[in-house]
Amino acid sequence: MSTVPLVDEDCDHPIVRRVFADIKATKNIDRVPNIWRALATHPEHLELCWTRLKAIMSPGKVDALTKEIIALAVSVTNGCRYCINSHTAAVQKLGLSLEALGEVLAVVGLYNQMNRLADAYQVEPDILPRPW
Amino acid sequence: MSTVPLVDEDCDHPIVRRVFADIKATKNIDRVPNIWRALATHPEHLELCWTRLKAIMSPGKVDALTKEIIALAVSVTNGCRYCINSHTAAVQKLGLSLEALGEVLAVVGLYNQMNRLADAYQVEPDILPRPW
Amino acid sequence: MSTVPLVDEDCDHPIVRRVFADIKATKNIDRVPNIWRALATHPEHLELCWTRLKAIMSPGKVDALTKEIIALAVSVTNGCRYCINSHTAAVQKLGLSLEALGEVLAVVGLYNQMNRLADAYQVEPDILPRPW
Amino acid sequence: MSTVPLVDEDCDHPIVRRVFADIKATKNIDRVPNIWRALATHPEHLELCWTRLKAIMSPGKVDALTKEIIALAVSVTNGCRYCINSHTAAVQKLGLSLEALGEVLAVVGLYNQMNRLADAYQVEPDILPRPW
Amino acid sequence: MSTVPLVDEDCDHPIVRRVFADIKATKNIDRVPNIWRALATHPEHLELCWTRLKAIMSPGKVDALTKEIIALAVSVTNGCRYCINSHTAAVQKLGLSLEALGEVLAVVGLYNQMNRLADAYQVEPDILPRPW
Amino acid sequence: MSTVPLVDEDCDHPIVRRVFADIKATKNIDRVPNIWRALATHPEHLELCWTRLKAIMSPGKVDALTKEIIALAVSVTNGCRYCINSHTAAVQKLGLSLEALGEVLAVVGLYNQMNRLADAYQVEPDILPRPW
Repeated sequence: MSTVPLVDEDCDHPIVRRVFADIKATKNIDRVPNIWRALATHPEHLELCWTRLKAIMSPGKVDALTKEIIALAVSVTNGCRYCINSHTAAVQKLGLSLEALGEVLAVVGLYNQMNRLADAYQVEPDILPRPW
Repeated sequence: MSTVPLVDEDCDHPIVRRVFADIKATKNIDRVPNIWRALATHPEHLELCWTRLKAIMSPGKVDALTKEIIALAVSVTNGCRYCINSHTAAVQKLGLSLEALGEVLAVVGLYNQMNRLADAYQVEPDILPRPW
Repeated sequence: MSTVPLVDEDCDHPIVRRVFADIKATKNIDRVPNIWRALATHPEHLELCWTRLKAIMSPGKVDALTKEIIALAVSVTNGCRYCINSHTAAVQKLGLSLEALGEVLAVVGLYNQMNRLADAYQVEPDILPRPW
Repeated sequence: MSTVPLVDEDCDHPIVRRVFADIKATKNIDRVPNIWRALATHPEHLELCWTRLKAIMSPGKVDALTKEIIALAVSVTNGCRYCINSHTAAVQKLGLSLEALGEVLAVVGLYNQMNRLADAYQVEPDILPRPW
Repeated sequence: MSTVPLVDEDCDHPIVRRVFADIKATKNIDRVPNIWRALATHPEHLELCWTRLKAIMSPGKVDALTKEIIALAVSVTNGCRYCINSHTAAVQKLGLSLEALGEVLAVVGLYNQMNRLADAYQVEPDILPRPW
Repeated sequence: MSTVPLVDEDCDHPIVRRVFADIKATKNIDRVPNIWRALATHPEHLELCWTRLKAIMSPGKVDALTKEIIALAVSVTNGCRYCINSHTAAVQKLGLSLEALGEVLAVVGLYNQMNRLADAYQVEPDILPRPW
């Protein structure tokens, strides 16, 4: 159960109303996801979060599916239940097959292991040509 | 400084020799990265790690660059210094531009924030059509 | 469901009885919270945890509300469901408004993002006058 | 060593110039901290991060020192070296004494322990009057 | 609810059938645990994970109970609900008493605290005789 | 560089003097490790930490080596550089061979991977006979 009351979808606070409408239009959905209804308890923060997310997640040099895959990889590494559920749904909506999801998660699992081994042995970075 | 002595590249333990040669051939490099030299202190574990990494990282339904981007996203979220250095070099070698790297990291930063907000409000997953 | 049976509030083990009574008196509550009932499966550890928590959480140079805000920030960053629930209730009991909670969580979210960006770019600490 | 070249303080990219000037003016410092010079490799992301940080960190219902203490608590919990250094300096600049810092860190340490014990025993949240 | 459909225990995919049979035989159980049924949505990854886990968890220089205690310590530190439940059951099956479990978890809690204090103060490693 | 000045080993604050002497006697060492010198900037917290660590780490139902192995597993999972160094030295001093260390770390790496896969698939705990 959420720690704050979720703001109603019909809330008439002007910022909330505007952001909720933009979320539904941008994502082409007819319900406002729960995270935004919780954030709406602080309308200015809701707007900061949404406008920034919208800017960062719009396709640029990196396409939308890759961005959602990154979001899933981060959410799994942090063990965030809500986010794992929503980003798994999002990558599927963008066309990732069950088999490809298996590959994505295999990579996520692998580097959670390798990260800890590199830390465990306190390995110094290799001397590499600096990228850029 | 590493917590174990790094195994010499010329080590003649049969498993180590075989794995080191395969690492250099597969990655087309002429030095064995430090993490593998640390793992070589336990040759059977070295081989388990390498063969599994090689299988998971070879392109399948997901391409090599996307897999390296996932590796970088995981490494950043875990704060693993060695791995951040090596995967940043890897994505650059595979052609990711500095601008695209900026986009990738913006997404990684964003979801480290959003994950914590979803946890903070203890938001229940939305009822979504189950993918698959 | 907890992994160990929660110890009954009326338990007559002398250490458990003493600690449970002190918890109720100190916090001015009439039920022993679940975490203490789980810890009571190892009475000596229960006592170590409680006496130390009591010492650290009593107001000193830092007031009680700020200490609970820190506890909440840590619990959110770790994604601990039980602790997020109890510290959200605690800060509210100490007078933090819903709007101020929104500000607190905005800061928590922000630095979970900024931490990862600083790690991602492997930024060296600035040369600052050392505090103290 | 940072994974990207730090952008020069005198960079004449219009967004970077504007943000760097605002950072120096807002923080009343004469050098741009390294994290902003790294983020400037992607000027739009630099601006998003800075304007959002500036909005969230300005005092509101929660004062500036408490916000910096939260930032420090998060950074310690995530183990972010750069951020621990800069937020330790920031709380000191805002007047936190060495003794009070000791109290803050004691609370941070305590809840990193308690969070894990609550997770370890899989303790269900207590039934509490919902805040708000 | 799991994000993918759990593969049926009677699935006739040859890899899945072989791995499921080996899991039941090795662990001497008559039901396939849920994690393996989820991994079976990608049979090659299932096999990679299982064969590696079987190799690493078989007693060698370190006995089976100690290995399960390590698994529990890692799972608690990561806050993984599924894994905490299964490894708590596993250590009990291998004979760890409730009192000894209390000691194990006390150590896990303690170092989650001490790790963060060491990070908080940015303490340099002591100059120690290098092990090995 | 540490964020606070390390307290001198010859400090004559009565609590610090007593704790430092006990650390050296208990661990049979002639230098006070850096973490305790940093904690000594807040003598009461130093004492709380030390007396609690001493109580938890003394052998009981679980032996000293297993306790140090747990400390190492936690420190690796948290990526704490100082602690990884000191606990690696500690397990070696207690007789763990390089080969056995390799096994320990293999288990730590494995469950950092498996934890994330269990989270990724949001697997529900198996219905197990409750331990205890």
